Amino acid sequence: MGKSNLFGKDLICTQEWSLDELIQVLELAEEMKRNRFKYSSFLKNKTFFMFFYNPSVRTRQSFECAMTELGGHAQFLEPKTMRLKTATTAGETIEDAAKVMSRYACGIGIRILEDKVTRYGEGDELIREYARWADVPVISMAHDKFHPCQGLADIMGLRKHLGKDLRRKKILLTWGHGALARSWSSLQESLLICSRFGMNITLAYPKGYDLDSEVIELTRNNCDENGSYLETTNDHLEGYRGTDVVYSRNWMSPNAYKDGAFLKEEEIRKAMEHKKWICDSEKMKLTNDAIFIHPMPVDRGHEVTDEVASGKRSIIYDIAENRLHVQKALIALLMSDCW
Amino acid sequence: MGKSNLFGKDLICTQEWSLDELIQVLELAEEMKRNRFKYSSFLKNKTFFMFFYNPSVRTRQSFECAMTELGGHAQFLEPKTMRLKTATTAGETIEDAAKVMSRYACGIGIRILEDKVTRYGEGDELIREYARWADVPVISMAHDKFHPCQGLADIMGLRKHLGKDLRRKKILLTWGHGALARSWSSLQESLLICSRFGMNITLAYPKGYDLDSEVIELTRNNCDENGSYLETTNDHLEGYRGTDVVYSRNWMSPNAYKDGAFLKEEEIRKAMEHKKWICDSEKMKLTNDAIFIHPMPVDRGHEVTDEVASGKRSIIYDIAENRLHVQKALIALLMSDCW
Amino acid sequence: MGKSNLFGKDLICTQEWSLDELIQVLELAEEMKRNRFKYSSFLKNKTFFMFFYNPSVRTRQSFECAMTELGGHAQFLEPKTMRLKTATTAGETIEDAAKVMSRYACGIGIRILEDKVTRYGEGDELIREYARWADVPVISMAHDKFHPCQGLADIMGLRKHLGKDLRRKKILLTWGHGALARSWSSLQESLLICSRFGMNITLAYPKGYDLDSEVIELTRNNCDENGSYLETTNDHLEGYRGTDVVYSRNWMSPNAYKDGAFLKEEEIRKAMEHKKWICDSEKMKLTNDAIFIHPMPVDRGHEVTDEVASGKRSIIYDIAENRLHVQKALIALLMSDCW
Repeated sequence: MGKSNLFGKDLICTQEWSLDELIQVLELAEEMKRNRFKYSSFLKNKTFFMFFYNPSVRTRQSFECAMTELGGHAQFLEPKTMRLKTATTAGETIEDAAKVMSRYACGIGIRILEDKVTRYGEGDELIREYARWADVPVISMAHDKFHPCQGLADIMGLRKHLGKDLRRKKILLTWGHGALARSWSSLQESLLICSRFGMNITLAYPKGYDLDSEVIELTRNNCDENGSYLETTNDHLEGYRGTDVVYSRNWMSPNAYKDGAFLKEEEIRKAMEHKKWICDSEKMKLTNDAIFIHPMPVDRGHEVTDEVASGKRSIIYDIAENRLHVQKALIALLMSDCW
Repeated sequence: MGKSNLFGKDLICTQEWSLDELIQVLELAEEMKRNRFKYSSFLKNKTFFMFFYNPSVRTRQSFECAMTELGGHAQFLEPKTMRLKTATTAGETIEDAAKVMSRYACGIGIRILEDKVTRYGEGDELIREYARWADVPVISMAHDKFHPCQGLADIMGLRKHLGKDLRRKKILLTWGHGALARSWSSLQESLLICSRFGMNITLAYPKGYDLDSEVIELTRNNCDENGSYLETTNDHLEGYRGTDVVYSRNWMSPNAYKDGAFLKEEEIRKAMEHKKWICDSEKMKLTNDAIFIHPMPVDRGHEVTDEVASGKRSIIYDIAENRLHVQKALIALLMSDCW
Repeated sequence: MGKSNLFGKDLICTQEWSLDELIQVLELAEEMKRNRFKYSSFLKNKTFFMFFYNPSVRTRQSFECAMTELGGHAQFLEPKTMRLKTATTAGETIEDAAKVMSRYACGIGIRILEDKVTRYGEGDELIREYARWADVPVISMAHDKFHPCQGLADIMGLRKHLGKDLRRKKILLTWGHGALARSWSSLQESLLICSRFGMNITLAYPKGYDLDSEVIELTRNNCDENGSYLETTNDHLEGYRGTDVVYSRNWMSPNAYKDGAFLKEEEIRKAMEHKKWICDSEKMKLTNDAIFIHPMPVDRGHEVTDEVASGKRSIIYDIAENRLHVQKALIALLMSDCW
């Protein structure tokens, strides 16, 4: 028994990994989907810590399930009960917390989203602070900037339904209205990983909903390297024409934070004004028989109609299932010594 | 390896299963009690989701323990942190939640009791909505109408102490005063399952504490089919005469809900007025050396005296232990492919 | 397969165990550190209940990890959701709770600290009430008086760095200022177990911070039996001279409770006035090249400077790691039938 070439790495954003490394995860995930319980001793008796600064639907279920299926156990930890040091209270430093956790666990997952930080980017800094001190791999389970496991699950779904060569396939990433004021993490991860895999991208949103300009710049660079394109539009319709994939999702505006507070109510009020920003059957008719994807939970009736979300071309449940497989592959590659 | 004839079924109320099916669970539970760690690979590496809309003492402990003893893991999930859609907030639909959970888990348990619903019956509707969409078995871990695992644990205890043929054995189900305003679930399950097994039943309670008339009707039908009887009384004493089993438990009145609110304080105030409704040694002397049962937690000094609850004829701990065995048998039959 | 001579014992304070028994735990812990995954079937499919009246950093992580590494599972339970009887509310008695838990689990751990009790000593009474009724071992996971697992982890660290014969080695247990108003548990356990192992002890603290006089008396007796000494001082400096170990930690004053309330803010205010009570490099120069220990979480900048806490003679992470090994050894000896 030995270790994979990925043993010990962190995963905070897919952009920081090589394409070969990402494909290695995806191929193992596809194999683990075919043979779901074949790898049940790869993390036998090992512990993975899940740090949930924010609660979660899918992420906790799928990570805890992943560890169970690999023979280990994922501990569900809520930092609010952990006497950690913050700007205003005494407590344990991240250095101390990460050093000690490395003595117990084979890896650490961290989730920290928009409403648990005082400004965009703070969650990314926190997770990198853990990674700096930890002696075991740190994985983002979604933070304010990125969501690497969701990006991998998306691509796994696209590879299954569109074929493994995704170059020149077109994806529409479109803003949807809604009442959840969602973070940029899933969208930005998708921009980066879809452009890494050579896809053409249309990014559509109403004025006032720009994403992180640095991520847009990285996406353009990825496209340039692959000879593909990224185009942006403020039109709710035109991106649908001829596209192979539609991804409709609400996200917050760049003005969501003021003086360290996350203005959720204000964001929802503004977003709900853009009622024509919804993915429906009429728009889907403009596409190249596109598949519909979404990181879930879906805000039905706002981001997308029931007809599309539950329609024949929707693969939302497949992609949700993929979260399990890519996360199993990931933690097995990063943490197991059974290769 | 294969699957049992019960593979894939839901269990929301024992009334919906055949007597043979119930006996199959009980006999396996009895075998699993004798050989507690023999079945430790039946759900190896499998995940069971426990959804606790309400907290619990016994139910969480026993289900999580059951999965551990079968080689798998039960995830403790609290829907309050899950961004589910409700009447007043955006979020994920039960359809989406159930469909995705079915991709991760081998089964789903749900607990939702009186104070998490706005009217009697709403919990039952919610659990059936999960069962409608889930592709894996859904088990009630107690809801506002029924509590099938408690019913099975009760019968397992009675079979051990009174013999396997329970026909014509008499059980007194009596209201007790107390400060907990309990739901009808355990009582109603007991009415149904005891009548299925041919027992004679006396149901005793003060005026104003009627149970669900539909459940009473079903119980009468069960008795008619078995040639046994159900009698009701508002006398706190007469049901004790000659009975083989006493089950004393507080329950709320049919007026517990008003305009969607659960009037707990008012219920407790009213219940505490009926101080003579307590099971004590004097009353137990009227019985046929009856055993005392209770689904626990016991409200000692109100529902029953310490002397009876801790007395030689009390089998409350045995029945609590049975929760583990019947739940292990149940999930192994519904979810394992090791038969 | 059989059981160890410690099978079935409780551990509430190391003082109640013989020196040979404590050494047996330590030697197994040392072996389990060398061969971390060798004992992975010792509690296979078994359940350990962790009762957290107070939240925790290290204790939950290390106990849950310990059970995973022994093949079983530790359930994380919060009594606040368990409908237990209290002085003011109806609910389940400790007798009933402990009796039923003994039917499901191989052991029970309980943590109850300063702010969840109304006076010093109440946590100790509660844990002994559980132990009275439980049919399985009860372990203190830190309570208001003692913290046996921390004491064992401390000694395991000292044995590694100072050699197995700790007689006549000198330890300084010194109060540090800080903003956490900590309980006496770790300190008092350390006094007792260090004196059991024959160490010389200097206990240093500002006036007004006396510990439990009964524990001081027991420590003196232990010293007398070993021909070692306990000396106390109110000087923040003199205890450092020639010592082999420094343990700097904040603790509350004996006036922390008033009328059943824990006066945390007042305690912090008072403690923060004693700013010279901090372990720093200058003081460490007075020692016999002492190692620095601490039960963590460390309140850096108050109890100890960063320079010392992260310095070459600090073994705080080793001792934190030892929590895992001593707890694994402990539960394996108390609960496994694989010996």
